[in-house]
Amino acid sequence: MGSALAFVAADAGSKVQLIGTPVDKDVIDACLREGRHPAMDEAYPAGTGFSYCDGWKEAVEGCDFVIAAVSSFGVEWFMEEILCSLSPAIPVLSAAKGLICKEDGALLSYPAHWQEELAANGVSRDIYALGGPGTAPCIRRKDHTMVALCGPDPEVLLMMKGALSTDYFHISLTRDIEGLEMAVAIKNAYALGISMALGHERSRDAGSGKECFNSQAAVFYQASREMNRLLELHSAGQLSRHIGSGDLFVTVTGARTRQIGLLLGEGKSYSEAVEILGGITLESVVIVHRLQEYLRIKEERGEMDGKDFPFLRYIIRVLDGDKVGELPWKEFEMEEL
Amino acid sequence: MGSALAFVAADAGSKVQLIGTPVDKDVIDACLREGRHPAMDEAYPAGTGFSYCDGWKEAVEGCDFVIAAVSSFGVEWFMEEILCSLSPAIPVLSAAKGLICKEDGALLSYPAHWQEELAANGVSRDIYALGGPGTAPCIRRKDHTMVALCGPDPEVLLMMKGALSTDYFHISLTRDIEGLEMAVAIKNAYALGISMALGHERSRDAGSGKECFNSQAAVFYQASREMNRLLELHSAGQLSRHIGSGDLFVTVTGARTRQIGLLLGEGKSYSEAVEILGGITLESVVIVHRLQEYLRIKEERGEMDGKDFPFLRYIIRVLDGDKVGELPWKEFEMEEL
Repeated sequence: MGSALAFVAADAGSKVQLIGTPVDKDVIDACLREGRHPAMDEAYPAGTGFSYCDGWKEAVEGCDFVIAAVSSFGVEWFMEEILCSLSPAIPVLSAAKGLICKEDGALLSYPAHWQEELAANGVSRDIYALGGPGTAPCIRRKDHTMVALCGPDPEVLLMMKGALSTDYFHISLTRDIEGLEMAVAIKNAYALGISMALGHERSRDAGSGKECFNSQAAVFYQASREMNRLLELHSAGQLSRHIGSGDLFVTVTGARTRQIGLLLGEGKSYSEAVEILGGITLESVVIVHRLQEYLRIKEERGEMDGKDFPFLRYIIRVLDGDKVGELPWKEFEMEEL
Repeated sequence: MGSALAFVAADAGSKVQLIGTPVDKDVIDACLREGRHPAMDEAYPAGTGFSYCDGWKEAVEGCDFVIAAVSSFGVEWFMEEILCSLSPAIPVLSAAKGLICKEDGALLSYPAHWQEELAANGVSRDIYALGGPGTAPCIRRKDHTMVALCGPDPEVLLMMKGALSTDYFHISLTRDIEGLEMAVAIKNAYALGISMALGHERSRDAGSGKECFNSQAAVFYQASREMNRLLELHSAGQLSRHIGSGDLFVTVTGARTRQIGLLLGEGKSYSEAVEILGGITLESVVIVHRLQEYLRIKEERGEMDGKDFPFLRYIIRVLDGDKVGELPWKEFEMEEL
């Protein structure tokens, strides 16, 4: 996603400096040598600069803002190595998607988590975030993409929007940070579940070659319902909810989460599925575990009823090693009488 | 859909009598001769009865309830020929999807429209309705399907649920008739728009053979947002909104509306598209015209601002004969600051 945003920013007329994490040394080597990422066909736009991680301080000097495009696995590293030393005068925009579950069951977005930890170290800064339905390959092909930027200061948001707006990259603005971050994180868990259900229905219906549209729609609807319940509990606004809905749609349709979900749904174990897919790490699995922790703590404290989330509980059971089996369809039925 | 529900009801242990409309004489001929619909491979379940339209009064004698599975084009016929003479003691369940736009711009579901017209003729009856994401072919293949039944009397709803519940047909119950009917009707208009956008992006990106996931998700998200605005204006409940979301998903993914939308998006005119598809009639086009009327009247009365519905206005323009062209992407951006 960091690379995709480098293309967007260049198209928007911004000058970009790409900085690798410590595991990206070979990538930066290749970039400096050939001007392109080893996994990409296309070179970065002319004018893109490249830096190794240990040169980050010089690289960010005089910049308008820093984009953090780390995965869930880089969140603590980014805080300790970068945020703790970065001048609070330089705004930070996070493109990382995920949540932290605190000991009391509170779910925090990465920006909120970072702010909290920084505050404990006496550093006060706001973190901005970008979320919405966009896969990196489609962004790079200039497919129209609608995202949102969130954060507290409208002026900073407008500055960031200006630096990233193009005729194919469309940016809404909101102050609802927790709502947006929650929506784009939890959609990964539910997209995994929808793909599992699809894999399961396909293998049940093997040989017909026909799609199971109704059951896909049914789990999409149940996912929307449970996502909305979680978002309501965290006072998310309308924009964030709809972004979550679009993001769920794209993740089910076209992202890597779909592949692992299909394999799990066909009855593969998690480790078999990961092996088949060549050992990729998945945000969706991280977020399921965080939501599992959240549900467990909230239920223990009597603050939530797991019965309200039958689909999420099914997803958790499958990742915990249960045979995929039939979905709890009857638990999805509702009576509003 | 009437035929699909006949299979469901038989699986639920109910006895079904299929009654043709006046245009279905040949279909009933074939059913009486061979026990199956001429357009279907499979015979109706054993025990299914068949009647011509003129024998409907005898056919419904002693039944628990009547299901009206007419298209938008049969709505007035069903009211005049059936509802005006049917004993109010026999409950009616509508599977018709659509809305009527009144002269003052009010949008009415078919059940509400029927009730109003019947009341003007001194007949008092409640109409129940069934809605949700389900294509008839998938229902007939026993793909898991989640729908909702709505209506005023919980006992009648539970009776209908009992008559149609199977291990693959899952029924929620709600009293939110207008919300549910509105959700499942307007999703047809937006599904048409999403498919148009997809057709347009595909032809723009011709030759790459790659899917435009981001733009699909972007229009899905914009559609969700506008649908929700319309549903809010009509005080729809949560269940209805989520059913609408699932129904939008299935209609975009697997229904006929997708085909005509793709053709329009590729730049075909409406009449060309209908010709290519063999002259099929489409609920989605009817509902776009009803919403067009609704927007026009509400704007004239100063009760609504069309700017809140840029995607709907785009869909209307294309059906009105405008070249398909670029979507109004920048009108989709929002600033909640």
